[in-house]
Amino acid sequence: MAVREGAGSTTGLRRADCEALDAADPLAGWRRRFVLPEGVIYLDGNSLGPLPKATEAVVLEVMRGEWGEDLIASWNKHGWVDLPQRLGAKVARLLGAEPHEVVVADSISVNLFKLVAAALDLRPDRHVVVSERGNFPTDLYVAQGLRDLLGERIELRLVAAEELEAALDHDAALLMLSHIDYRSGRMHDMARLTAAAHDSGALALWDLAHSAGAVPVDLGAAGVDLAVGCGYKYLNGGPGAPAFLFVAERWQAEVRQPITGWFGHADPFAFERGYRPAAGIARFLAGTPPILSMKALEAGIDLFLEIDQQALRAKSVALTDMFIDLVDRRCAAWGLEVASPREASARGSQVSLRHLEGYPIMQALIARGVIGDFRAPDLLRFGFAPLYVRFVDVWDAVEALEAVMAGRLWDQPAFRQRATVT
Amino acid sequence: MAVREGAGSTTGLRRADCEALDAADPLAGWRRRFVLPEGVIYLDGNSLGPLPKATEAVVLEVMRGEWGEDLIASWNKHGWVDLPQRLGAKVARLLGAEPHEVVVADSISVNLFKLVAAALDLRPDRHVVVSERGNFPTDLYVAQGLRDLLGERIELRLVAAEELEAALDHDAALLMLSHIDYRSGRMHDMARLTAAAHDSGALALWDLAHSAGAVPVDLGAAGVDLAVGCGYKYLNGGPGAPAFLFVAERWQAEVRQPITGWFGHADPFAFERGYRPAAGIARFLAGTPPILSMKALEAGIDLFLEIDQQALRAKSVALTDMFIDLVDRRCAAWGLEVASPREASARGSQVSLRHLEGYPIMQALIARGVIGDFRAPDLLRFGFAPLYVRFVDVWDAVEALEAVMAGRLWDQPAFRQRATVT
Repeated sequence: MAVREGAGSTTGLRRADCEALDAADPLAGWRRRFVLPEGVIYLDGNSLGPLPKATEAVVLEVMRGEWGEDLIASWNKHGWVDLPQRLGAKVARLLGAEPHEVVVADSISVNLFKLVAAALDLRPDRHVVVSERGNFPTDLYVAQGLRDLLGERIELRLVAAEELEAALDHDAALLMLSHIDYRSGRMHDMARLTAAAHDSGALALWDLAHSAGAVPVDLGAAGVDLAVGCGYKYLNGGPGAPAFLFVAERWQAEVRQPITGWFGHADPFAFERGYRPAAGIARFLAGTPPILSMKALEAGIDLFLEIDQQALRAKSVALTDMFIDLVDRRCAAWGLEVASPREASARGSQVSLRHLEGYPIMQALIARGVIGDFRAPDLLRFGFAPLYVRFVDVWDAVEALEAVMAGRLWDQPAFRQRATVT
Repeated sequence: MAVREGAGSTTGLRRADCEALDAADPLAGWRRRFVLPEGVIYLDGNSLGPLPKATEAVVLEVMRGEWGEDLIASWNKHGWVDLPQRLGAKVARLLGAEPHEVVVADSISVNLFKLVAAALDLRPDRHVVVSERGNFPTDLYVAQGLRDLLGERIELRLVAAEELEAALDHDAALLMLSHIDYRSGRMHDMARLTAAAHDSGALALWDLAHSAGAVPVDLGAAGVDLAVGCGYKYLNGGPGAPAFLFVAERWQAEVRQPITGWFGHADPFAFERGYRPAAGIARFLAGTPPILSMKALEAGIDLFLEIDQQALRAKSVALTDMFIDLVDRRCAAWGLEVASPREASARGSQVSLRHLEGYPIMQALIARGVIGDFRAPDLLRFGFAPLYVRFVDVWDAVEALEAVMAGRLWDQPAFRQRATVT
C-alpha cells in the first residue's frame, strides 16, 4: 500500500491499493445487499438511495400475503396501524433519540409545516424563525407559506451561517437549520447551535435529510427539540419514501400541531366529533399512512440496525478524504475546485466540486457510468454512501473525471442539453 | 328467474336467480381482475379495496426495472416527476373534471387542510366554514386544527343536514361536506347544495372518499369549487394509497395554499430562494411523492378507465336494492334495521344496518367469511363494489346474516372482545 502522508493523502496511491482497502473494509459485505447496475459507479445516494435486495420480497409480501390475503384485517393482523410508530422507533436508533420520540409520516415539507407551527405555538411571546439564507429551499418555502398563512406577525429571518448566533435575539422562537448543506456537504455543529438557540430562549429544529444513515447523529446529547428527515436518500427507502419527524420527549405533553387528521387522534376509530390529540409522538400523524411505501422504507432502515455508526462514519471520511485529495492532484489543473469543507469533521458524506461548466461535465461523467448530480449554477455533487461505495469506485470516478476534463469530453452539444433535473 | 315486484323486490328470489343475474352481468368479467381469497365475501371495499391482480407486476416493475435499474434517472426517464399530475388526469375522468383540475398527493387530511385554507383565502371577508355535524370526523378535525392555528377569527359552524342551507349566510366562506356519509351511505345532492353555497357567496368543497369509483360524479356539471378523495377505497389503490384533490380551473390562477413545498414550486429544481407557486393544480403539491404507493394506485385507477360509469352505478343500485329487500324479509324479525336511505338515488354503494349488538354480530359474520365492518355505536356497514361483488354474494351474505341472527351465533364472548378496529 502507498505511504499515506495524513488524512486523505493519496501520494503514490495506485488502484491496487484501493482494492486492498476494499478487501480490508469491514463494511465491504454490505454492498452485496443492494441492486447496483453493472458498469455504474453510483455517487448519488444523497438524492436517491439504490434498491436494497431485501425490499422486493418485503413489498411483495405486503401485497400478496397481507393486502391480498387478509384485506382490511391487515391493519391489525399485520401491524399496519402502528407502523408509523414502529418505524419511528427504528429510525430513532440512528438519531440518538428515544423510540417514542420519532414517527414516520408524510413528507419533509408537511412535517416541517407541522413542526414550525408547533414551535411557534410553544413560544407564543416570540415571532421570529431564524434560518440560514442558503438553507434547502423547500424548508424556507414551508416557513414562508406558514408565515403567509399566519399573517405578518411571523418573521422569517434569513442570515449567513456565521451570523446565526447574532440573529438569535429575544424575539427568536425557532432556529431552523439543515444539519448538512445540500450543496456543499458542510455539516453544522448541531450541539453548539442548539445551545445557542436555547441560550436565546428559542427552540432548535434540524433537517436531517442528508444526515440520517450518513453521519452519526445524537439528538439527545445535543439537546435538540425538533427534527425532520427523509427516507429516500441514505436510508434507501425508495423514491419519495415517507419522511420522519422527531419531537423531544420534554415537549410532547404540551406541543400542538395544526394538521389534525384522524391518525393523530387519541382514539381514531372512536370517530369522536372533537379532536383530542393522541398522547406522545402519535399526535404528529395526520392521514392514513401509505403502507407499500412505508414497508419499502422499513426494508431500507432495517439494514442500518445491524451497522456500527462509527464504522460507517470512518469509512465515509476515508472515501471523501481520498476523493478530495485525488481531485486536487489530478483535476485541479482543469479548474475543478473542491467546494466542500476539507476538514472531515465539518463535512457530511458528500463532496461537491465547482466548475462553470459543471452541467456538461456531469453529463459527460454520467455517460461514462459515474452518477453524481449537478446543482446550479456550478456545483457537481458526489455522495459517498459507505454501505455500497468502494475505494476502487473513488479511484475509478476520479479517473473518469480526469479523462473528461483532460479530453474536454464534456464540450459536446449533447451534454449541454438540459433535461428536467432532479 | 323470479318475478320482481319493482326495484329491489326479492319476492320469490332464489339463489339460482342470483346466479342467472351474475351470468347476465356485463361487469361480471371484472371480478377476475382482483385477488379475492377463497371463501370470503368481501363487502368492505369502502374501507380498503382488494388487490388488483395487475398491481403486483406494476409495483415489481417500478422496483426492478425503474428504481433498481435506472436509479435517480428514473425521475425523468420513467416519468415519476409528473406522476401526481398524470394520475390526477386519470382520476379526473371519473369525476367529470378536466385533466388539469385534479392532482394526486398526500392524504385526505393534508389535502383538506390545503383546500380549507385556500377557500378561506379566496373569501377573505368571510370567516365561517359550514359543515354537517355528522361529517366524517377527520374532516372536522382538520377544520378545527386550522381554526385553532388561525385563531378565533375562523368559525366552524356544524349543523344537521336539513339545516345546511339555512346555515349558509353572508359570513359563510365555505360549505364542506362529504358526498356520501361514511355511516349511512346517504348521498347528498351535490348540485343542489353547491348551488346553495354559491347563492350565499360561499365556495363548495366535497369529500369524495366514498364516491370515487363507486357512483358517477360530475364536479363540472355541479359547479363544484374544490374536492378531495382517497385512493384506497373503491379505487383499489392499496392501503393508505395517496389521496387526490380537485380545484376548479376558474380558481387556479388566484388560489393559494399554505403547505408550500418544493413540488408545488414553479421550478422545483431551480432551487430558488423564494417560493413561486407553480401554474395550475401543481401548486397543491408539497413534498416528494411516494412513488411505490403512487404506482400501485395507478394500477387500481387504470381498471376504471375502461368501465362505463353508468353500468357500474346500475349494478351498484341493483346489488344494494337486493340486499336491503332480502334483509327486510329475512332479518328484520331479529331487530336488524336498515340505516341507509331506501331510495337508491339518495344512497351510495353501501348499505348500513343498525343493531345494538352490531359489534358481535359483525364479528360472527366475519368468522363466517362475510367481511363488512362496524361503526360505533350500532352500525354494521356493507360495501357493494360492483367490480367484484356478485349477486350470489348478496344472497350468501344475507344467508349468513340470517343464520347468525336466528341462531344467536353472535352471542359468544369471543365475538365481544374488541380489537383495534379499522
